[in-house]
Order: sequence, then structure tokens, then C-alpha cells
Amino acid sequence: MEVGIIGAGSLGLLYSYYLSINQSVTLYTNKAVQANLINEKGITVQRDNNLFHMNMNANDSREYKEQFLIITVKQYQLEEIIEKLKDQPSKTILFLQNGMGHIRFMPEISHHRILFGVSEHGALKLNETTVKHTGIGMTKIAFYDRQKIDSEIINTLINNEHSLFMFKLFTEWEPILKEKLVVNATINSLTSVLKVKNGELISDPYFKKLLYELFLEVIDVLNERDVDGLWLHVVKICENTAGNVSSMYKDVKEGRQTEIDSILGYLIDHAYGKNIPYMRFLYYAVKGIENENNLGRV
Amino acid sequence: MEVGIIGAGSLGLLYSYYLSINQSVTLYTNKAVQANLINEKGITVQRDNNLFHMNMNANDSREYKEQFLIITVKQYQLEEIIEKLKDQPSKTILFLQNGMGHIRFMPEISHHRILFGVSEHGALKLNETTVKHTGIGMTKIAFYDRQKIDSEIINTLINNEHSLFMFKLFTEWEPILKEKLVVNATINSLTSVLKVKNGELISDPYFKKLLYELFLEVIDVLNERDVDGLWLHVVKICENTAGNVSSMYKDVKEGRQTEIDSILGYLIDHAYGKNIPYMRFLYYAVKGIENENNLGRV
Repeated sequence: MEVGIIGAGSLGLLYSYYLSINQSVTLYTNKAVQANLINEKGITVQRDNNLFHMNMNANDSREYKEQFLIITVKQYQLEEIIEKLKDQPSKTILFLQNGMGHIRFMPEISHHRILFGVSEHGALKLNETTVKHTGIGMTKIAFYDRQKIDSEIINTLINNEHSLFMFKLFTEWEPILKEKLVVNATINSLTSVLKVKNGELISDPYFKKLLYELFLEVIDVLNERDVDGLWLHVVKICENTAGNVSSMYKDVKEGRQTEIDSILGYLIDHAYGKNIPYMRFLYYAVKGIENENNLGRV
Repeated sequence: MEVGIIGAGSLGLLYSYYLSINQSVTLYTNKAVQANLINEKGITVQRDNNLFHMNMNANDSREYKEQFLIITVKQYQLEEIIEKLKDQPSKTILFLQNGMGHIRFMPEISHHRILFGVSEHGALKLNETTVKHTGIGMTKIAFYDRQKIDSEIINTLINNEHSLFMFKLFTEWEPILKEKLVVNATINSLTSVLKVKNGELISDPYFKKLLYELFLEVIDVLNERDVDGLWLHVVKICENTAGNVSSMYKDVKEGRQTEIDSILGYLIDHAYGKNIPYMRFLYYAVKGIENENNLGRV
């Protein structure tokens, strides 16, 4: 199977490496210089203390020719890609964005078969061709429209992959994306503003109180009923990633744009008058911190 | 006039220096080692790029003999001093604490003549005997009980002091303390959590929005009507101290206990069901940050 992977950040490099073990992968980068480096050096994955290497075809074109595309760019980089996909013949496309902001684009590309996915892998980009696989997870996927299923690609993904890089198919996409959104909206935004590691949100009783109250706002906006189950999930993630810096806090630290708009911004847009003061506080705080970072860089 | 100044932090050192130009001052420190240093080296004030020096009597006793006492310790260090003052013969005592948490002690020491004061000076303690006078302000004072006025001390303070260290007497104490409380509750708590300098709260539009919404909560709890006037005051303070780190953010940075309980804690205790989510968020955030600092030091 020919696979096109769009975006060569940490997830793009990771998926390119693991999928190219059994498939023919082309990696689409944003800039020519990164594509050249990847063509020259291949991709290196660091896992535990071992290095794994794979040659890779990369290019910075916007002509995605493969029948199966995996889009790993951040939500705020998606618009340009959506424009391209509008004019392309029907493909199967897996979206791996955080939040739910990208759902709104789907009617514009409804001639494709769309999969939504959530990646549970931990990945840290070390340089333009090297990624550290910091946590083994799975990729949960589900079709956006259950009338339009691509069984061949599903069978290839599920039956034919690496034991440390499993795909699992779900029937409903909303629960998967919402579960991840709850985690991102609580852990990521709070750690970015308090500037703490994930574990501190539950080891400190005051931070845990903030986490829980914020969690209740998020659950309320999403109309989620399984409050206890989702709370245990959030706490579990804090435990399992206690020593980690969340991806949003990492963005803040490195002066990059964050995904706050597709996470808290999305929820605030869908709150419809519900009481969400902590979400609003954190949204404005992160937007301000992004601004400050930009000013600092000029 | 004999003056006892209790507490040898930045304000204690500053007031000791300026008052001892014309009065006989004894400075009461918490620890003997600091008292010994002050007796040996005197007090040095750095203002602009000049150094000013004064010999000083200091000791760490709790027997405050002077007729006029100025208490400069933090609110959370006050309880022990109040206990001592209960048994002392009637004096005139000026309290210079932030917040309004100390008001509750007054019935226990009602045999004294009590003044409340607000210091507008900027002061930064450089070491145990040296303080930098970073901003010239005035000391606003008012008697707690207008039936019990000590004219002699007021005349001494107002007529006889240094031109860079003026005292101004007001008839009502509440407006002075509330104005300062509004400033502390907004600027100090927000800068401590966002970890920014005072000026960034108004230069960044997102932070300014947070500042204003927090300000409205504070005003509401204090039943203050002059919303526009107080907002201009808060903005003015941010402008005048744009490059400064607030005292609470400084405490956070240096791993010290903050005054959050006597500032936001006091307001939360007096909110009586009013809607104060930003105050609650910031209160728990600062309490958690204090905890983290303590854990870090063990």
C-alpha cells in the first residue's frame, strides 16, 4: 500500500518510520530543506536506548498522490491542506489532530473517506530527521461516515503492523475524540499556565482542585455523562505521564504557537451560555503567553 | 520621639532609616543574627546610585518599650506580635500590612490607639542591612477609631520628616486600605500566576482582559462604586511600575510564603456567594505554587 504522510513533526516522523516497515511511505514536509535532509539521512527513531533507522522518500510538494493519507500537522496548519484536498480524487484520509476544531472542514471534503484518529504515542522530535519514541500507545481510529468504510486500508493497518505500533478501529469517532479533548483541555492548558509537569496536577492538592473544577466545566460543555470514568482517565494520564511536560507547555516553553484555539477555543465556541470561567481564564492566559513569546522573539 | 519599628524586611529597614534622621528609632528584628549585623553595620539605603548610611539600634527582643510602634511584618507573621501587644500599656501603633486580614485582630488590642497605613514606597531588600529605595511614594495613614487620635505623633510624622518620605493623614481608613487591596488582589495575584512583570498586564490585550475581569470581581466583593476611578488607578500602577516584579511574584520566585491569604483569601472569605471564579482560580494556583516551592526546598 502506498501511504502519504503529511507533516514531519514528531508524529509525522514516528508514523513514517513505523509504517514504512511494511508499506511504501512518502513523507510530505513543509520545507524543502527538511525533505532534502530526510532523503539524505533517512529517519531515525530512538526507543529506550536503541536507535532504529529507515530510508525515506520525502518531498515538499503539495501534490498528494497516494490513495491513503495520514495528516499529522497541527490543527492551525490544516486550512491550506484542506484546500488542496478539495480538488483531489477520492482517497482515504486519516486526521490525527488534537481537539475537534477540524470537524468543521469535513463537509468541504466529503468525497473522501475520512478517518479520525487519536494517537496515544509519546513522541519528541530531536531534530529534523530524528524522533524519540517516549511512550508506546496505540492509534485509535474511526470512520467519520460509517457508510463509507475502506476495508482494505483498515485490514492493512490493523493486521499488518508493528507490535509496538498498533491501530485499533472503533465504530464511533466522537467518544475517542472527546476523551482526548477532555485530557488536552484540562492537563495541557493547566500545565501551560501553571508551568508544571503533568504529575504535579494531581500530587498537589490545590492544583488537583483546579484540575477537577476545570474538568467539570469541560464535561459540562461536551454533555458527557460518564463523569467518574473520565475523571479517572484524566488522573491516570497524569500518573502515567507524571514526569512529562505536556505538548502545549512544551510549545509555550519553546515560543511556538499552541493548539489552544482548537482545544479550549473550540469548547468555548460550543459552550452556549454555560458557566466556564476557568476555561475562559486559561484561554486568555495562554493567548497572552503566546503573544508575549512572539514579542520576545521579534 | 522614641519609635519602635517591628520587622526588618524591606519596609522595616526603609522606615528605620528615614525616621531615624529626626527621631530615636529602635528596630526589632526576628532573629538575633540580623540585629547584631545592624548594630554593627548600621542601615544602608541605596537610592538612585547613591548610598546613605545611618547607625541603628536593633534587637530581637519582644519587649516593645516605645510609645509609638510601626509594624511592618507580613500579615501572616502578625499573630505573635498581637499576643504581645495585648498585655502592653496603651501606645500608638501603625500597621503597614497589605490586605485587610489584620482588621480582625483590632478588638483584641483596643486599648491602644491604632493607625492603619498604606506604603506607596518601592523597596527591595538587598541584604540584612541594606535596602534599595526603588520608588518614592507616600505613606497614607488614618486612625482606626476617630475617637482616639494621637495628635502629637501625627504632628511629628507629618511636619518633621524627610521630603522623600512624607506621611499624609486621612480621615477614613477603609478607602485607603481598599484601594491598596484592589491593586494587590489584581496585579499581585495575576503576575504571580502568569509570571510576568506588572506592565505586561496592560500591554498584552489578553492579559488586560483577564486583569479587568478579575478587577470587576474584586470591586464587586468590596461593594466599591467608583469602578472607573479604581480601574484607572490599577492601570496607572501597572504603567508606573511596568518594569517591576510585584512583591507576590517576587515571593513566589524566591520560594517564600506569599500574602495570598490576607489578600485573595480575605476577599474570598467576604464574597458571601458572589461570583468570583477568577479569584478562586488564582487563590488555588498561588497556594499550589507555594506548596511546590516548599516541596522543592525540602
